[in-house]
This record gives sequence, structure tokens and C-alpha cells, in this order.
Amino acid sequence: MIPMGTGTSASKYVRAVHQVLKESGLVFIPTPMCTVVEAERMAEVFKVVERADEVLAGMGVGRIITTVKIDHRLDKEISIETKMGAIKE
Amino acid sequence: MIPMGTGTSASKYVRAVHQVLKESGLVFIPTPMCTVVEAERMAEVFKVVERADEVLAGMGVGRIITTVKIDHRLDKEISIETKMGAIKE
Amino acid sequence: MIPMGTGTSASKYVRAVHQVLKESGLVFIPTPMCTVVEAERMAEVFKVVERADEVLAGMGVGRIITTVKIDHRLDKEISIETKMGAIKE
Amino acid sequence: MIPMGTGTSASKYVRAVHQVLKESGLVFIPTPMCTVVEAERMAEVFKVVERADEVLAGMGVGRIITTVKIDHRLDKEISIETKMGAIKE
Repeated sequence: MIPMGTGTSASKYVRAVHQVLKESGLVFIPTPMCTVVEAERMAEVFKVVERADEVLAGMGVGRIITTVKIDHRLDKEISIETKMGAIKE
Repeated sequence: MIPMGTGTSASKYVRAVHQVLKESGLVFIPTPMCTVVEAERMAEVFKVVERADEVLAGMGVGRIITTVKIDHRLDKEISIETKMGAIKE
Repeated sequence: MIPMGTGTSASKYVRAVHQVLKESGLVFIPTPMCTVVEAERMAEVFKVVERADEVLAGMGVGRIITTVKIDHRLDKEISIETKMGAIKE
Repeated sequence: MIPMGTGTSASKYVRAVHQVLKESGLVFIPTPMCTVVEAERMAEVFKVVERADEVLAGMGVGRIITTVKIDHRLDKEISIETKMGAIKE
């Protein structure tokens, strides 16, 4: 989520989104370019995105650009852990 | 939405997603790299994404990588039309 | 390209990027959410992105978030036109 | 980088891209959804992307969808480390 119409620093908004994620109970890990969330169903991720958008709006952000990338694998169960394991040499 | 575990052509899946969009009643325009959808609320977009994901799964796609980018502007109403108008010289 | 540390409107920056694209001679089409560029080689696209970044920096933008998505198809030649044709019913 | 026209597993391609990154000498960290690279200049990142694209092409991938997201901050120096530090409570 990229806030526009604010300063160049986004860290307080990132922390607010992490707070929403903590309250959601979903497993998530922050990375330098995005936050990775693990969920059983897309709807859980979308619910958190909507809540985070509301929180940023409540903080006075005038324009919010949100990118959600979903990896939905149907042939086997995947998780943050299995994905990280698979790319290790 | 990028199907994995299928061939290199994605056009039949793109057409299936467009069919979902048509049924949703939302305004949308196809572009060479993505499909742009206009909605009053995020939830409407997410509902369509979930439905499209189900449809691709039903077509036998083994892994679906979906990217949703949302431009939520709070200081004024925007649409596909106003956005295209604003960038015209 | 998303400018941060400026206002909520990005249109003047989008127009500046389009100017860079015009000068590059590459085929491009604006869309409401991104600009699609057609090139023979990745390097041509990257050269334009670097130039656009310089131009936005010169306009005083304090932070620039750029997303470049590349569709490189090796089994057949594609273009903006063939891609749009393929998804038509 | 998402390979199309292959199976649903991408791990061998991800490992090949990591090999390219190792040879580049750039600092990078793998995450479950992308790989984060730190560089002084955009051109260094683009050089690596072009090389990785060549490597995947050499492995027989028929279509490669690459997304590069760049955070270029002009008002102060940032790194993977400073970005991760800033979002910690």
C-alpha cells in the first residue's frame, strides 16, 4: 500500500497496516518491499486489505495505491515455509 | 491473473475472466497487460476476483498468480474516464 | 511510476513520462492504471524507465515507486495488437 | 519472474535467478513472493533482470512474466536494512 499526498516516508502507515494484520490473526512477514500474508482463503486477505485501507483513510491519507499479489496453488498446499524451503539450494 | 501449469497462451483464461466481469455489471476495459475495472467499493472488485479465481480453477488451472492494483482516491471521485482525461495534453 | 511526497494528483508526472516515451520512438498506449509500451528488447524499455525516473527527479519528486511488468514471449512474436486481438471473442 | 508454459512449480527457475544474483555481487534477500535486491543504480538491477531472463530462456521457458518494482528515494539513502528498521515498532 503506497500513500500519496503525504511525505516521502511511509513507515508509520506500514506499521498501522501491520497492526491490522496482527489483529487479524493471520501469519504475516514484513519484507523491505511488501508484506507477505498467509491465508487459507482469498477472502481473508481481502478483508484485511479493506480494513487496512480504512485505517489509512482514517489517518488522513488522500490517495492509497494498493497492490495485492496472490499465489493460489491448487495442486498442493503451500505456505510461507514451504515456499521458502523450495527455493533453498 | 497469470495461469501456471498450462501452455504459454492465456487468451482463453482472459476471456473467461472478462465473462465474469460482464456478469458482474461492473465497467471494465481490457488492456494488453491487464484489465481495468471501475467500482464504487473495493469489496465489489474482490468479489469479482474470487469468482474469476473459481472459474479458472474450474478450467483446470493448477496455479493462479493474481495481481490486483487498486487506486483509491479519497479527495475526489475518479473514474476510468476522469483518469484518462487528466493525462491528456 | 508513483510519485510520493507530492500531492494526490499524479497527472503532470504521467504526462512527463509520456513525453519521454514519445521521444523514445517506442509504441505506447496509456491506460487508466499504467502505460503499455511495446519494444523489441527489454533494454529499450529499461532505458526509457531510467530516463523517466531522471525526469521525475528533475521535477522535484522525493520518492519514486516504479513498477515494470514485462511479458516476454519466446514461442511467437507478440505486440499490443496481437495481444488485444487474442482476447477478443 | 513467473514462467509460463512449464509446470506449476517454479522453484528451479527461482534458484537459477538467485544464481544470477549471486554472480552479480548485489545484496539480495529471497522472500516467499519475490526477491528483494539492493543496488546503487537502477541500471544494475536491469542488467541482472536481463541476464535472468536469458537464463530462463536458456532453460526452455516459453513465456516469462517479469515484475520489477523499484523504490527510488531521493531525499535520503535507503537500504534493505534501513527499510526493515523503519517499520519495526
